[in-house]
Amino acid sequence: MTKEQNKILIQGAILNGKVSDLLIEGNRIKTIAENIPKEEGMQVIDGKGRAIVPGMHNCHTHSAMTIYRGFGDDLKLMDWLENWIWPVEAVMTEEDVYWGSKLACLEMIKSGTTAFLDMYTFPLCTAQAVEDMGMRAVLSYTLFDRGDEKRAKLDREQCYTYMEKYKHFSDRVEYSLGPHAIYTVSGPQLQFCHEFSQENDVLIHLHLSETEGEVKDSIKNYGLSPVRYLDKLRVLSPNLVIAHGVWLDEEEMDLLAKHNVKVVHNPASNLKLASGYRFQYEEMKKRGILIGIGTDGCSSSNNLDMYTAMKLAAFMGKAWRFDPTAMKAEDIFETATKSGAEIMRIDAGEIKEGKLADLVLVNLNRPEMLPCHNLISNLVYSAAGAAIVDTTIVDGKVLMLHGKVDGEDEIMEKASKCAYDMLKRANKA
Amino acid sequence: MTKEQNKILIQGAILNGKVSDLLIEGNRIKTIAENIPKEEGMQVIDGKGRAIVPGMHNCHTHSAMTIYRGFGDDLKLMDWLENWIWPVEAVMTEEDVYWGSKLACLEMIKSGTTAFLDMYTFPLCTAQAVEDMGMRAVLSYTLFDRGDEKRAKLDREQCYTYMEKYKHFSDRVEYSLGPHAIYTVSGPQLQFCHEFSQENDVLIHLHLSETEGEVKDSIKNYGLSPVRYLDKLRVLSPNLVIAHGVWLDEEEMDLLAKHNVKVVHNPASNLKLASGYRFQYEEMKKRGILIGIGTDGCSSSNNLDMYTAMKLAAFMGKAWRFDPTAMKAEDIFETATKSGAEIMRIDAGEIKEGKLADLVLVNLNRPEMLPCHNLISNLVYSAAGAAIVDTTIVDGKVLMLHGKVDGEDEIMEKASKCAYDMLKRANKA
Repeated sequence: MTKEQNKILIQGAILNGKVSDLLIEGNRIKTIAENIPKEEGMQVIDGKGRAIVPGMHNCHTHSAMTIYRGFGDDLKLMDWLENWIWPVEAVMTEEDVYWGSKLACLEMIKSGTTAFLDMYTFPLCTAQAVEDMGMRAVLSYTLFDRGDEKRAKLDREQCYTYMEKYKHFSDRVEYSLGPHAIYTVSGPQLQFCHEFSQENDVLIHLHLSETEGEVKDSIKNYGLSPVRYLDKLRVLSPNLVIAHGVWLDEEEMDLLAKHNVKVVHNPASNLKLASGYRFQYEEMKKRGILIGIGTDGCSSSNNLDMYTAMKLAAFMGKAWRFDPTAMKAEDIFETATKSGAEIMRIDAGEIKEGKLADLVLVNLNRPEMLPCHNLISNLVYSAAGAAIVDTTIVDGKVLMLHGKVDGEDEIMEKASKCAYDMLKRANKA
Repeated sequence: MTKEQNKILIQGAILNGKVSDLLIEGNRIKTIAENIPKEEGMQVIDGKGRAIVPGMHNCHTHSAMTIYRGFGDDLKLMDWLENWIWPVEAVMTEEDVYWGSKLACLEMIKSGTTAFLDMYTFPLCTAQAVEDMGMRAVLSYTLFDRGDEKRAKLDREQCYTYMEKYKHFSDRVEYSLGPHAIYTVSGPQLQFCHEFSQENDVLIHLHLSETEGEVKDSIKNYGLSPVRYLDKLRVLSPNLVIAHGVWLDEEEMDLLAKHNVKVVHNPASNLKLASGYRFQYEEMKKRGILIGIGTDGCSSSNNLDMYTAMKLAAFMGKAWRFDPTAMKAEDIFETATKSGAEIMRIDAGEIKEGKLADLVLVNLNRPEMLPCHNLISNLVYSAAGAAIVDTTIVDGKVLMLHGKVDGEDEIMEKASKCAYDMLKRANKA
């Protein structure tokens, strides 16, 4: 069956407060109407007691790190990296990344996420996992040289090699560059990334201004705070997506706005790693900065549930400014869906005719979803994606139907085995 | 069948990292062993792929407020109370409280909570709901006079009347007094509660030191901060359970410790209402203060999922002090289970032979629960109770088996109808 022939009819679901049908043709939403006649060959999905909502767009994660979930919590950063993560990452294989990424896709599909922006090692393995699972992702080739010019040169070459390799995947898989951070990638290398990004029109995915220590080091080493340093390097651009951004000052936010840089808020890891909790959502919004939400990787956050991320973002956004009217539910929901899609350049994130059919049915017949005075409030403040997501559709294809994903038992088993074997190899089991 | 005859055998579950059987006889855990022979008349529950964990003890909620979920979010406190909550509470009926409480019990059972400490209007309706649902609860008669001596006198009489009425319920339902707060209940009335509590050995459940405004008002009106004011009234005692306590100073914590007062942390409502986020967990622990966790009511928090509450407590506890080693997973899990049970004087909260059979099976075969490097970490940092809880047992009786609670559809339907009708009566629909 070609994409053009694929037809899915969702009947009797709740959409914008009303009972509605929705027809998918190929990979796009064709029609939204009260009663759409069923035709032969259509796959019919019962939407009764369910609401249609856009898929979540997870704008920052390291998906394969699912296999580190619960390994090394409650530690100081350097203790965690040096004694827990790095010794294990040293023995990590392509297979580990493939199955770890598949477990991540499974968790995201089951909690209502349809697309994600990733950065990790062996990104071709993650690409294959995304391809096989039917999700959508922008995957970054990670540049990480720590001043080693031989590694830096190899990284530059690999940027091209990987870009070619990504052309073999479907258009659900997009390529991007992932210079890790300003303390692990040199200035000239960041400038190379910028030029590469301009020439090939790919995104750049960079950790920035995550901790107060990073800002202090930046001032010490480069004489400038992180965003000012990037501005001096002339690498601020609309293609740049920075993850974290919890230690920005007013002038830095002005610079980000001026160059249309995107910012991804990762509340779970910012809180759990105690990196910083005063994410300046309102201050950035006001300047017109496009903000997305991310879960970060499971070694720091420890799940990939964007509904949890929305809740944390909203709660913290109110708490630190002692203002319960800040970070409203509708706002944060749009940030996690529509804005996230825009950051990843995906024509989805809204339920509208003509948009890509990346959407989710959520179960309304659960105690935590009732009464339904306000669906968006229930989604943001009450629900966990893992508990309410019933059906997930990406690119017009059903990835989960009424709670079941094809092959999920095998994925859970294989990913767990990879995780335990990996710890054994690293003598950490 | 009498309680003595009731026998439940859980086979092949994970307990303390090993595969184990667990036998319940009557309402207590009788035996924990590798292989317990099945006898005639035993109810057998398949524990494969599931872990046995203690039930959560939700130490502060207003359960019937489920029917306000999502009604009036993102508002300033007085706007919310005066224009949203109070006009509707004025038309609230006993039936609303009964079905709202049943919906709350359903939500708690489905997310792994076995007992809760409540404070709300029509507490006999909540008691009936708890009785009917099979849960365990300590329910407070709310005293709330705002200086009206007629109401205060009625409240004092009702304390006795209600205590008598509670004797008709099973021993799963315990009585307590709930003077609302120091700004709604007079000093003499608090002293009456204290004496009543001493004479009848019941708990006192009081909102205290929830907002900075409350502290300032206390100093203005009584010349003392809230805990000092209670100390002056001589009402600090081991029977006193204070909810919130986010604005305590060192000397106040010393006073609470000296009098063995219990403190309940409600991270979700403290964040969402922007009341205060610096809960001084370590400072209280160090003094030997017994701390519990609560969800607060659904009009402020907006769910009753104690797993979410644990996550918020741990994340925020690390974040505000910029210390990722604070509020460790094991610690917060014990606080939500064992300490909570101790506060409510329930002989549960641990899986041990002889303890009450108030326990939960959680599903380990979910992506967010894998790999299982550390079960407690997965429970606290990754899981939502609503997604992972498989079976809930209270007082040796199965309230939920493999995701199903008897009569759940009726509860969801009736509670929702009460909610919508209530808003119509208040002209708020």
